Amino acid sequence: MKNTHSLQKELNIVKRLIKDEVIAEKTISDLYKYIFKSDGKRLRAKLSLITSSLNKRKNKKRLKLAAVIELLHTATLVHDDVVDESQTRRGAKSVNTLWSNAHGVLIGDYIYSKAFILMVEIAEPKILHELANATNDISKGELIQLDALNNISVDLKQLEAISYYKTGRLFEASAKTGAILSGGDRNFVSNVSRCAKNLGVLFQIKDDLLDYSLDEKAIGKPVFQDIKEGKLTYPFYFAYTNADKKNKEKLLSYLGKKRLNIKSIYNLIHNLNGIKETELLASKYQNKAIKYANSINNKHIKAEMLKLIDSSFNRKK
Amino acid sequence: MKNTHSLQKELNIVKRLIKDEVIAEKTISDLYKYIFKSDGKRLRAKLSLITSSLNKRKNKKRLKLAAVIELLHTATLVHDDVVDESQTRRGAKSVNTLWSNAHGVLIGDYIYSKAFILMVEIAEPKILHELANATNDISKGELIQLDALNNISVDLKQLEAISYYKTGRLFEASAKTGAILSGGDRNFVSNVSRCAKNLGVLFQIKDDLLDYSLDEKAIGKPVFQDIKEGKLTYPFYFAYTNADKKNKEKLLSYLGKKRLNIKSIYNLIHNLNGIKETELLASKYQNKAIKYANSINNKHIKAEMLKLIDSSFNRKK
Repeated sequence: MKNTHSLQKELNIVKRLIKDEVIAEKTISDLYKYIFKSDGKRLRAKLSLITSSLNKRKNKKRLKLAAVIELLHTATLVHDDVVDESQTRRGAKSVNTLWSNAHGVLIGDYIYSKAFILMVEIAEPKILHELANATNDISKGELIQLDALNNISVDLKQLEAISYYKTGRLFEASAKTGAILSGGDRNFVSNVSRCAKNLGVLFQIKDDLLDYSLDEKAIGKPVFQDIKEGKLTYPFYFAYTNADKKNKEKLLSYLGKKRLNIKSIYNLIHNLNGIKETELLASKYQNKAIKYANSINNKHIKAEMLKLIDSSFNRKK
Repeated sequence: MKNTHSLQKELNIVKRLIKDEVIAEKTISDLYKYIFKSDGKRLRAKLSLITSSLNKRKNKKRLKLAAVIELLHTATLVHDDVVDESQTRRGAKSVNTLWSNAHGVLIGDYIYSKAFILMVEIAEPKILHELANATNDISKGELIQLDALNNISVDLKQLEAISYYKTGRLFEASAKTGAILSGGDRNFVSNVSRCAKNLGVLFQIKDDLLDYSLDEKAIGKPVFQDIKEGKLTYPFYFAYTNADKKNKEKLLSYLGKKRLNIKSIYNLIHNLNGIKETELLASKYQNKAIKYANSINNKHIKAEMLKLIDSSFNRKK
């Protein structure tokens, strides 16, 4: 209980750190404030704070690192919204919708470079190395996903690779850099990194599942976006794999269509085991994450990681 | 003569360094190769190679630094083309035109993060600090410019600030980081940085002038783009300042219009001294750049910088 409370307190300091960075920049503060107004789950910042709590000697750097992670994540979100032409983000209008695509591109670059400035200030070569490579992998994943749009020949391995690059990779880097900062030994760094990597893929699979949900209100964001954007995700993939020729054609005809009968698509994909097999895949990643969490030789951090895995697996939004 | 030859040789090594980074990434190599196929002037890479030539002990890092600078510059170009909705770049179709805006955003991010990986490998804290801040300033400049679109109340000071952020800043960082790497003393670093900063603004002013040219063929890119995009640059600014009420209204009516009678606009801006006063401003920056170049206490580097100033001032494309 006490630990959760202190984590929340730290997250608030991280938020203030980010805010302070912004207020000095009058010209763009409107845009910036707007983006950070809406609260995300801050899962990545949490991960970093949890793993760096092994040793709080470098406490100022710990908080700065969490701010860096949150900034990096936000920059990718802002650019993703331009890429996906998303209308909303976290229940509010996206930057590209409220201002323009041009603003989305530039404010994303601005946030990236702010993250970069802060991480240079942290001045830990191994952390810089990990974050530089993670950032590169994330954009690589987005490019692979873009080129996989409407491409029915994508296989499960490729889908898992995309989930890793676009989501698992930053989860992994968040945990890893936190662990490095706290001076954890090789085993500790390896266990928290692998745990977070699998947690990230689990999180993404759940995200894909939630998109195939009939209860838009409960989720708090538009559903069936992936299929409309021609994005082939797990539920569709499994259903398509299990379908006969007639149903394959039916499914294909839905991919990339803007107007859809959501209920009949859901039923088709459900009946073809698309939902069930995706849930099984989520369990597989949950188990892998739990396995690595259980290998962490710090009671408190192990418990916090298990809590994150549990809430990610059971999330309803 | 020998020096120019060796600089060209080094630039070729830089090009190969960038190419090697890419070939490993099969998925995106098409896009990547496409971007680096068209040769730019590589002025920024040159600047960095010139100032780092003070001491070539760290020769591997010197070349890597020039590659970083070139990658950073290319990333901003790719994003700029999305922001400006440009059809062409360096005489070829832009990424956003040939593929999509989404590709433009992501490939830009990919190139940025590649630059970031390489600069972390250089592992010089002062260089990381300068490049992180320069990258942030560049995006800040682009955002200020975006919000100044179609805004007639922008003054000369703001225009000069935009030129500095969007162009002068990376020129400055290129020279400064090269100088830092070579271990130059404070005076050397300061003189080459200030020289490059003014050279960059000069370069941008010349760019703005070339856009107001009637000979599209000689320049090799579309002209009168700025006024069409609602971008207020020096020739327009000076002409507008000198205009009477009637001509002010006329000029305003042109700003942001896609179809224009180029010849009559040119004549109007020319007659209102818009071209002449911009040329005078270019001379002012040329003189500042020369002043700092003359203070550089290395004969060879001084000569190279003066050569760059001369070619930038007299450039016809």
